[in-house]
Amino acid sequence: MKVRALVASLAIIGSAAGAGFANAEDLAKPIQPPKQIDLGMAELGKKLYFDPRLSKSGFISCNSCHNLSMGGTDNIPTSIGDKWQQGPINAPTVLNSSLNVAQFWDGRAADLKEQAGGPIANPGEMGFTHQLAVGVLETIPEYVREFKVVFGKDKIDIDQVTAAIAEFEKTLVTPNSRFDQWLLGKKDALASDELAGWNLFKESGCVACHNGEALGGTSFQKMGLVEPYKTTAAAKGRADVTGKDADRMMFKVPTLRNVEMTYPYFHDGAYWTLKEAVDVMGRLQLGKKFTDKENAQIVAFLKTLTGEQPKFDLPILPPSGDKTPRPKPFAK
Amino acid sequence: MKVRALVASLAIIGSAAGAGFANAEDLAKPIQPPKQIDLGMAELGKKLYFDPRLSKSGFISCNSCHNLSMGGTDNIPTSIGDKWQQGPINAPTVLNSSLNVAQFWDGRAADLKEQAGGPIANPGEMGFTHQLAVGVLETIPEYVREFKVVFGKDKIDIDQVTAAIAEFEKTLVTPNSRFDQWLLGKKDALASDELAGWNLFKESGCVACHNGEALGGTSFQKMGLVEPYKTTAAAKGRADVTGKDADRMMFKVPTLRNVEMTYPYFHDGAYWTLKEAVDVMGRLQLGKKFTDKENAQIVAFLKTLTGEQPKFDLPILPPSGDKTPRPKPFAK
Repeated sequence: MKVRALVASLAIIGSAAGAGFANAEDLAKPIQPPKQIDLGMAELGKKLYFDPRLSKSGFISCNSCHNLSMGGTDNIPTSIGDKWQQGPINAPTVLNSSLNVAQFWDGRAADLKEQAGGPIANPGEMGFTHQLAVGVLETIPEYVREFKVVFGKDKIDIDQVTAAIAEFEKTLVTPNSRFDQWLLGKKDALASDELAGWNLFKESGCVACHNGEALGGTSFQKMGLVEPYKTTAAAKGRADVTGKDADRMMFKVPTLRNVEMTYPYFHDGAYWTLKEAVDVMGRLQLGKKFTDKENAQIVAFLKTLTGEQPKFDLPILPPSGDKTPRPKPFAK
Repeated sequence: MKVRALVASLAIIGSAAGAGFANAEDLAKPIQPPKQIDLGMAELGKKLYFDPRLSKSGFISCNSCHNLSMGGTDNIPTSIGDKWQQGPINAPTVLNSSLNVAQFWDGRAADLKEQAGGPIANPGEMGFTHQLAVGVLETIPEYVREFKVVFGKDKIDIDQVTAAIAEFEKTLVTPNSRFDQWLLGKKDALASDELAGWNLFKESGCVACHNGEALGGTSFQKMGLVEPYKTTAAAKGRADVTGKDADRMMFKVPTLRNVEMTYPYFHDGAYWTLKEAVDVMGRLQLGKKFTDKENAQIVAFLKTLTGEQPKFDLPILPPSGDKTPRPKPFAK
């Protein structure tokens, strides 16, 4: 009863955040391969995603903190920015991020395109400006040609840059996990402890927030619903966007897809193991202390959410031209 | 006559450095595809090459400074190390580095395997120790299995780590440049100005040092032979290894393969364009001031040295285990 009541209250919060909850039959869905991708734009975006010339230093690219070799994260609590500045929050995975209701932990960007412009111009991240980034690209002959082919315009602008990066990011879904195979009818895809974990995950109420294709990303929820979450991180979640006290500690529910690869966990990256993360979530969000056996079963289930990682050739970046502005890694 | 005399003197220096010069017919050779590669070891080495867990911070991998998207370099004058420390010297390209007579600008490592251990333990680069790096790897279940398959031993050690990285690096050759196609008989592979550049390159004496498969990497030579090279960099070249005053400013001749991608140039990374680099080399090494037309022809030739870049799927790294020691990006 307690759990059911809690799920109902979560549903209200979910609606309040404008996301709502899925119907029972939609609690978990298999990841769909990406559709309606502009391949030329995605190929251009892939290069930009890996190109550190979009940063002041010439050293940091999108892939530095959303590393596609490592589950689309950097696997450190908070990211390293220009001049080794310490970021305020854990870098969320880029994998399956097209399925998020909004981008960033606090949802301050509506979509991937809007998100992509953020780190480039953030003094603590890539430390550049949109104007300077475009100024670099328009001096690189191969980029000039490729932007023209893709966008059909004579001049590169930041909208094209972020649109291309977002198009590439739309391709970064991870279908065909063992859980998805099971959802699609391959009943031996999950072992008994994994299946027990899925049942616990449903019955305990985890799925109230971690639902949909990405098992997360569909709503904002309060971190520390039953018990407050203790953290030294200053981030206040949605309140940083809305200014409303009621939105304090309301964060976007992270996806659980590939969660075995996206440690450390939570917005402050304070927990390194799934065992700890499941324990914290149970106690703080559900008021439930999982036994060691239950915890191990849920962890076993979570590890079945690792899907096929994006598979592509490491992109080769076009060389700078003689007039390309030079990176300034050590400028005061 | 002057050039011929200079080439003779260079040949003496070359012999003194133990490398000698190639015969006339061997001045330039096409890049050969790699042979006798242990594919299992190279695949493991590829993962290690991209794995930032070999650094203290968990942020810097071999690929950070020898970026295979960017000609095997970082395209900045000197590299960024742990906590954004400024490196003392320009990161040489890893491409075709198996063809070098020795590794590092000063040749202090005999081969790729010996080189690979350097940056991991260098406090200014990856800032780790061999013991700590191995300690990380032996807690990552997929690595433990893969090392066992490749090396047939129960324990991972640093020799295995560096052997695997070196085996991967042996695959990083760039055959089939337009110049190589021309060398192999495709006479229309070079345009007339490019061919004029090659002839100037030969006749002016550049090829005395930039020869062999890699057009460089076969000998140590004095930077600033005819005129001293002015630089603020502290590196003294071979003298840093031998302690001999006669070895001051003796650096390994860099390869010119893919030189269009490996800017900025020279051991201090002080020059960004091929035009400048050709001018400096002509004046300081050959006592020759190339005309604008000659310079442009040599630059056109140099751009024909861009070969096929290594083509492989971005590696997916195995996730850390619950007991894996955690990276320390911001530790004092």
